[in-house]
Amino acid sequence: MRMVDIIDKKRNGGELNKEELQFFVNGVSDQTIPDYQISALLMAIYFQDMTDQERANLTMEMMKSGEHLDLSEIPGVKVDKHSTGGVGDKISLPLAAVVAATGIPVPMISGRGLGHTGGTLDKLEAIPGYQVEISEKAFIDQVAKEKLAIIGATGDIAPADKKIYSLRDVTDTVDSIPLIASSIMSKKIASGTDALVIDVKTGSGAFMKTLDDSISLAKALVEIGKGVGMQCMAVISDMNQPLGTKIGNSLEIEESIDILKGQGPEDVRELVLTLGSYMVVLGGKAQEFSEARALLEEVIASGKALDRFRAMIKAQGGDERVIEDYKIMPQAKYKIELPAKTSGVVASIKADEIGIASMMLGGGRQKAEDALDYSVGIELHKKIGDKVEKGESLLTIYSNSEAIDSTKNLLYQNIEIADSAQKPQMIYQIID
Amino acid sequence: MRMVDIIDKKRNGGELNKEELQFFVNGVSDQTIPDYQISALLMAIYFQDMTDQERANLTMEMMKSGEHLDLSEIPGVKVDKHSTGGVGDKISLPLAAVVAATGIPVPMISGRGLGHTGGTLDKLEAIPGYQVEISEKAFIDQVAKEKLAIIGATGDIAPADKKIYSLRDVTDTVDSIPLIASSIMSKKIASGTDALVIDVKTGSGAFMKTLDDSISLAKALVEIGKGVGMQCMAVISDMNQPLGTKIGNSLEIEESIDILKGQGPEDVRELVLTLGSYMVVLGGKAQEFSEARALLEEVIASGKALDRFRAMIKAQGGDERVIEDYKIMPQAKYKIELPAKTSGVVASIKADEIGIASMMLGGGRQKAEDALDYSVGIELHKKIGDKVEKGESLLTIYSNSEAIDSTKNLLYQNIEIADSAQKPQMIYQIID
Repeated sequence: MRMVDIIDKKRNGGELNKEELQFFVNGVSDQTIPDYQISALLMAIYFQDMTDQERANLTMEMMKSGEHLDLSEIPGVKVDKHSTGGVGDKISLPLAAVVAATGIPVPMISGRGLGHTGGTLDKLEAIPGYQVEISEKAFIDQVAKEKLAIIGATGDIAPADKKIYSLRDVTDTVDSIPLIASSIMSKKIASGTDALVIDVKTGSGAFMKTLDDSISLAKALVEIGKGVGMQCMAVISDMNQPLGTKIGNSLEIEESIDILKGQGPEDVRELVLTLGSYMVVLGGKAQEFSEARALLEEVIASGKALDRFRAMIKAQGGDERVIEDYKIMPQAKYKIELPAKTSGVVASIKADEIGIASMMLGGGRQKAEDALDYSVGIELHKKIGDKVEKGESLLTIYSNSEAIDSTKNLLYQNIEIADSAQKPQMIYQIID
Repeated sequence: MRMVDIIDKKRNGGELNKEELQFFVNGVSDQTIPDYQISALLMAIYFQDMTDQERANLTMEMMKSGEHLDLSEIPGVKVDKHSTGGVGDKISLPLAAVVAATGIPVPMISGRGLGHTGGTLDKLEAIPGYQVEISEKAFIDQVAKEKLAIIGATGDIAPADKKIYSLRDVTDTVDSIPLIASSIMSKKIASGTDALVIDVKTGSGAFMKTLDDSISLAKALVEIGKGVGMQCMAVISDMNQPLGTKIGNSLEIEESIDILKGQGPEDVRELVLTLGSYMVVLGGKAQEFSEARALLEEVIASGKALDRFRAMIKAQGGDERVIEDYKIMPQAKYKIELPAKTSGVVASIKADEIGIASMMLGGGRQKAEDALDYSVGIELHKKIGDKVEKGESLLTIYSNSEAIDSTKNLLYQNIEIADSAQKPQMIYQIID
């Protein structure tokens, strides 16, 4: 088999078979296929797309290129959640706890933040002592006993995907549905979960800006999951503005715990309950959505969900007193208000630029090796559709420096006040 | 400027401007752009094509990446010819002589053969003593004095094209009209000619198999030439069977000299006169085609064309006695006939496979470093449309070995005898 023939077949619109995709992925892994041939194939895939069968095969080959977890020791249907990423997206934290509280094992392998997007692991590390790097055995034991764990990848997961991903970034082949979908799903399948609910973001702050593109990606992800025998569905949710009111590591832990206490912003609560309800249905603890949702509202009201979050923090070495006292997390030196320059209604809050503002304060990374300041961030007092008076605070900046004019300017530039505006809906569509 | 943005612009169907193409070609030349980004752009160009302006700019940038000849010292309008390549294509040899005999300077920079295609330089080297590598100054002096020279490239011509060409071969981006056209024209423009007639082959033995593709390529080449101020036109000619009757290095020199003596096969004579007439018109020695053609017939009949060929051989150190005595060139030990297995009419002679048969005899190269046997080759006694009786010789194999069963089999497999067949036309279309 020759790589140039595989490129030719795809370039001319053909369907690559399992052996050809295996040859490609193996050649990527063992570096026998040069980068220029990998990138030529990626560009051909961008133009010619892939069939469902090709996507499933590519995903499985990338999954098999690395280590994968066997969670069969854990009793029950393991259910995980994946999000395509957004700003203020702390959903995984309360979600894992509410679902675990119904008795469903939730084994979550999460990532770190880069650019405007925060990372679940970074947020958890705002809790003093919390360990995200634990052994595979400790992970399995914890999920079996406490029903939940949120950790970083334990082994060399899908190394072929890592290589392909790095080339996509520099060859302008990032926004290709089959490549995005196989990249996400190869890692999720390697994580050993039985069922998966995917939160596909849509809107100005999302990777997929239009609803049509978001639906295409959601369908691709669900199709791959089903193709390899995983229970899988997707929720398309809004990312036209940051999720909730708090952006930043300590701040997002606060908001997550608020949700588990039955408090916190309505949009975060709504998304947690929606995603959670589908996870509960896939996990077999309810027949239908309404039943699942009632169950989740009950575990929040009873404190069982908060109890699961506390148990996870304790099991992973974190200081559980955070539940009652947010101040044990790093706190910013200054709280600086951003007053509205005009009266009106908030018409837009560009999520990705708000994320960049938080990064500029020290809450995010520009490069993978950057250090984080857990204490900083932004608390929104107004969201799209809210009335505001001139001089009223739009948001509070949590900062360790007072010299933040460029951050303020960026924030002003990306919050628009108009005569009128509608609140965006939270959930657009369910794909199953 | 960033290469990934250039890839993105082209991938999305945009038109790259001069500065972007300059950045790309310079980055290829100085190796600051990695191969994987070059190949991603090549694949994007394959899918999105290029405008006339982009093609002209890419060509000029590739030309400027290397050395180029200044032929302004030579008086008159310098006219060259380029062929997209075929089997039995010795046209350059008699053509240069007939055109030079009208007083037009013909500075030809030719190449070597690879695979089934022969090379003009290899054929000339069948003449004892003939030097294809001469200095730029000697080349200019010879063209000024004798009106013709056929040599190999004198300097580092279009190195960016060399790099891009090598990547196209392994990334399946060879058959892209803008890439083919800019590759050919960058080298031709670097050769310093004022006018160019391009022989674009069409048919089963050509790079372009269909007439439509051949016309597209011809138009692209002419458009680029005109875009950079070169007088340029193209002739679409047949390559459904080998040109003429002789294939092989010494054999093709024989056939070329035959043409200059007013003999030789009709198809070669027709193509020489057609291409030559357009060269004479571009060179300003005739107003129109019929006048030019009469002039060429005259220089053949008068012996002036043969005289120019003799002068060139002498000037480049070759043994001019070859004109009268073909036997001073290497001669094959065996002449082996290939008798027809059935009676009928020759319906097809696959040119590329006949070229491979000649290569297997030692007359061509499989790899660039292979040595050549000038003496071997094939002489066709029948061409498409000719009647043949069972047992009658289809062709003579000139070989230095008697163990040539696989060559014979290949030849039999690629010469079809049927009940009836039409002779293909020689000239399909003129593009100017």
